[in-house]
Amino acid sequence: MEKYREDFARDGSAGKPIAVVRAEDAAQVQHAVRWAAEHRVPVVPRGAGTGLSGGSSAVDGGITISLDRMRAIEIDPACQVAIVEPGALNIEVKRAAAELGLWYPPDPSSYEICSIGGNLATNAGGLCCVKYGVTTDYVLGMDVVLADGSLVRLGGKQIKDVAGLSLLKLFIGSEGTLGVITRAILRLIPAQTAGATLVASFATMKAASEAVVAIRSTVRASMLELMDSTSINAVEDWRSHGLDRTIGALLIAQSDAPGEACGAEIATMLACCEEAGALEAFTTTEADEAELFVSARRNAFHALEARGGVLFEDVGVPVPLLPDLVDGVATIATRAGVEIAVVAHAGDGNTHPIIVYDATDPDSEARARSAFDEVMALAISLGGTITGEHGVGRAKKGALPAQLGPDVLALTRRVKDALDPLGILNPGAVL
Amino acid sequence: MEKYREDFARDGSAGKPIAVVRAEDAAQVQHAVRWAAEHRVPVVPRGAGTGLSGGSSAVDGGITISLDRMRAIEIDPACQVAIVEPGALNIEVKRAAAELGLWYPPDPSSYEICSIGGNLATNAGGLCCVKYGVTTDYVLGMDVVLADGSLVRLGGKQIKDVAGLSLLKLFIGSEGTLGVITRAILRLIPAQTAGATLVASFATMKAASEAVVAIRSTVRASMLELMDSTSINAVEDWRSHGLDRTIGALLIAQSDAPGEACGAEIATMLACCEEAGALEAFTTTEADEAELFVSARRNAFHALEARGGVLFEDVGVPVPLLPDLVDGVATIATRAGVEIAVVAHAGDGNTHPIIVYDATDPDSEARARSAFDEVMALAISLGGTITGEHGVGRAKKGALPAQLGPDVLALTRRVKDALDPLGILNPGAVL
Ligand SMILES: Cc1cc2nc3c(=O)[nH]c(=O)nc-3n(C[C@H](O)[C@H](O)[C@H](O)COP(=O)(O)OP(=O)(O)OC[C@H]3O[C@@H](n4cnc5c(N)ncnc54)[C@H](O)[C@@H]3O)c2cc1C
Ligand SMILES: Cc1cc2nc3c(=O)[nH]c(=O)nc-3n(C[C@H](O)[C@H](O)[C@H](O)COP(=O)(O)OP(=O)(O)OC[C@H]3O[C@@H](n4cnc5c(N)ncnc54)[C@H](O)[C@@H]3O)c2cc1C
Repeated sequence: MEKYREDFARDGSAGKPIAVVRAEDAAQVQHAVRWAAEHRVPVVPRGAGTGLSGGSSAVDGGITISLDRMRAIEIDPACQVAIVEPGALNIEVKRAAAELGLWYPPDPSSYEICSIGGNLATNAGGLCCVKYGVTTDYVLGMDVVLADGSLVRLGGKQIKDVAGLSLLKLFIGSEGTLGVITRAILRLIPAQTAGATLVASFATMKAASEAVVAIRSTVRASMLELMDSTSINAVEDWRSHGLDRTIGALLIAQSDAPGEACGAEIATMLACCEEAGALEAFTTTEADEAELFVSARRNAFHALEARGGVLFEDVGVPVPLLPDLVDGVATIATRAGVEIAVVAHAGDGNTHPIIVYDATDPDSEARARSAFDEVMALAISLGGTITGEHGVGRAKKGALPAQLGPDVLALTRRVKDALDPLGILNPGAVL
Repeated sequence: MEKYREDFARDGSAGKPIAVVRAEDAAQVQHAVRWAAEHRVPVVPRGAGTGLSGGSSAVDGGITISLDRMRAIEIDPACQVAIVEPGALNIEVKRAAAELGLWYPPDPSSYEICSIGGNLATNAGGLCCVKYGVTTDYVLGMDVVLADGSLVRLGGKQIKDVAGLSLLKLFIGSEGTLGVITRAILRLIPAQTAGATLVASFATMKAASEAVVAIRSTVRASMLELMDSTSINAVEDWRSHGLDRTIGALLIAQSDAPGEACGAEIATMLACCEEAGALEAFTTTEADEAELFVSARRNAFHALEARGGVLFEDVGVPVPLLPDLVDGVATIATRAGVEIAVVAHAGDGNTHPIIVYDATDPDSEARARSAFDEVMALAISLGGTITGEHGVGRAKKGALPAQLGPDVLALTRRVKDALDPLGILNPGAVL
């Protein structure tokens, strides 16, 4: 039971559930939700528990419905769709599709360990979404168990469908507060070419961010990721990836344009980096060599976790404001006397400042928590968002009203009440 | 006033409004909606009136709020967004973006005459959406006047944002039943290369559809359109585009892959066409030559309208079922003794069977209307949709329950009631 209580945020919000239901099919989910509705018991839907905002934290006296046993995957190659149970891992869907020459693009850094249900419930992003879009762009159909235990089927295998309201899209990103997803129909596309990678180092995050803005205005990169010096050093401490510890920022960019166009795009990106004052840059078409850098970026979370207590931010701003955000975060870190590492899906203006503190020191933790709030306030003040992809969950709930304002919050509440009048679905999350 | 009563469907649903409010800014829209709410008067939002399902038909005793005077466009090139008032035409946004080397992809065939507000309200598709997606994929932010006259701001210039429920997406495609859109923030991308065009003729729509299915499974075409022999002949009768009247189907495909990859994609598509038994095929990189065929496809609606009364279908199916849909439509036409022309955004499985009847003959009209219902029933029986992009409006409302089923319909009703408790927004449309 213990391992179904918290997610990766370990934000202290988890209570003690009265039961964990490891459902084997949609009927069992319906059964559990119907029972919960009858007894007014909270229901927390849970995928793989890799969430970074306490979205699937167990609730005192509630039941957690884990979807981790429901993981069937069927590929329909003619329709180019995957029909997937929610517990299937992202990587399992990718693999099944790849066997038939197809590709499921959404690729959160956690793709090897997170579930499709969780991806849909958070509208997960990732590395390739700068070119290929986020989870919602790939969902054609969905089965959802509603708050009264009834099951609705939305969408289907057809690609375009505007019949009725966009309910399908409403459930995506709803973080378990509107229903439990029990099946998804996902759009696949033909596998793309492997492409080429550009790795460039900069003296500052600001210079690197400027390169990102320049690249984006001319080329559709298939990856545009950033690591700052703190995250580079954390990764090197954790497990050496051969990164240069002395630089201020590392940009990892890819192009998957076909044929010679790939080289042309990489050349353009390189020119943008040089223009922005890159210290060094190199390009490669060797997948293994590229993967070393990409995995360094992906491993930043784990590496930083190894250093102490961590608080995961997910703030986003309009892309040209990236340098301002990065600057502001550095100022907050200095003022609060905490370490804030920054990695970013930079091409979308989505950054992950990760606040590292001494978990044995209450004062350090308090300063970290106040820095956490300040970073979100900064993002809002720059016209951005407190969460680009991880979701609000329980960890970021406090800052949501400041971003949405009372009117949008009231509207949200109306939709929530219409769909979950008893308020049993993931209470305490988001709202 | 008369020209604000009907849309292009001319489906006979239009009533007599008590007033047309040609709003000049959001405050005037708010004022009008507030007044309407106080007096429980129906409100019909109206863009350019090019809709094909009676969505903006005036309502007896209601007011029509026309957005045609609100058409400011501002491009923010650094953020790569357009900030647009709803009455701006699609083509005006495209043009303003193009001046700065940017592109707003969504391109309904009506792009020269339809408004952005209408595009958002219907989640409009088009020709390039087979590769670039539909309207909802390009909306980052929106101002909406709600049923009580209050205005909410959703989203912003940030690209990724999952803070709170996906309300933005809920309003897209809501056909004026949930609120009046008064501003949109649209995502732009760098302009793509012009690319190349393949035009292939086939003896039957079935053979052409098979080519489409084959192409889709290997290549991401930037256009995959079909015309059948009836629509070819209608276009030729209306204004010669130099099409071959004797063929059964014409496929117009494009690739905008950069550099040499474009030629490779066109070669692959050509091979698929030959495999599927193409009679003739030619390729061109001359934009003018290509435009002749593309405009023939776009003009099919106008050409068919010139032949008599028309009923516009917009049915979609999973792509591999395209041949079945096309066959079924032909059977319905024969049985009903009416002419049904078919043009299609074939790459997405979205077809437009257009039923032509003798408007002076009540019997012909009755047979056309029953064929109209049969075509939608056929799409549903194939697991498809009654509308891929035009919306339900008033013309397709009768078939919606059969597609959604009572449970999804009830859910839709709950959302509608939560957002428009008095039911004043576009009553009679969709639901
Ligand atoms: C190392 C690491 C890297 C990460 N990188 C990324 C990244 O690049 N991009 C990104 O977007 N995220 C990232 N994440 C966060 C996380 O992996 C995603 O949010 C993921 O989508 C969560 O999936 P899950 O199955 O673990 O869901 P959980 O953590 O179990 O749940 C997440 C939320 O979804 C709800 N939920 C789960 N399943 C269902 C269901 N079937 N029906 C209804 N609601 C459901 C839960 O109630 C909860 O609110 C990362 C996490 C880690 C640990
Ligand atoms: C020749 C021709 C070709 C076409 N080809 C395509 C095509 O390829 N793809 C496609 O998707 N459509 C196509 N259409 C249909 C039509 O152009 C689209 O539906 C378009 O999006 C409608 O825009 P409009 O401004 O004319 O809206 P209107 O017809 O005025 O309204 C359409 C709907 O949107 C609502 N609405 C309009 N503005 C607002 C607003 N500001 N706020 C809230 N609700 C609003 C109305 O109430 C109505 O329900 C075509 C039409 C024609 C005549």
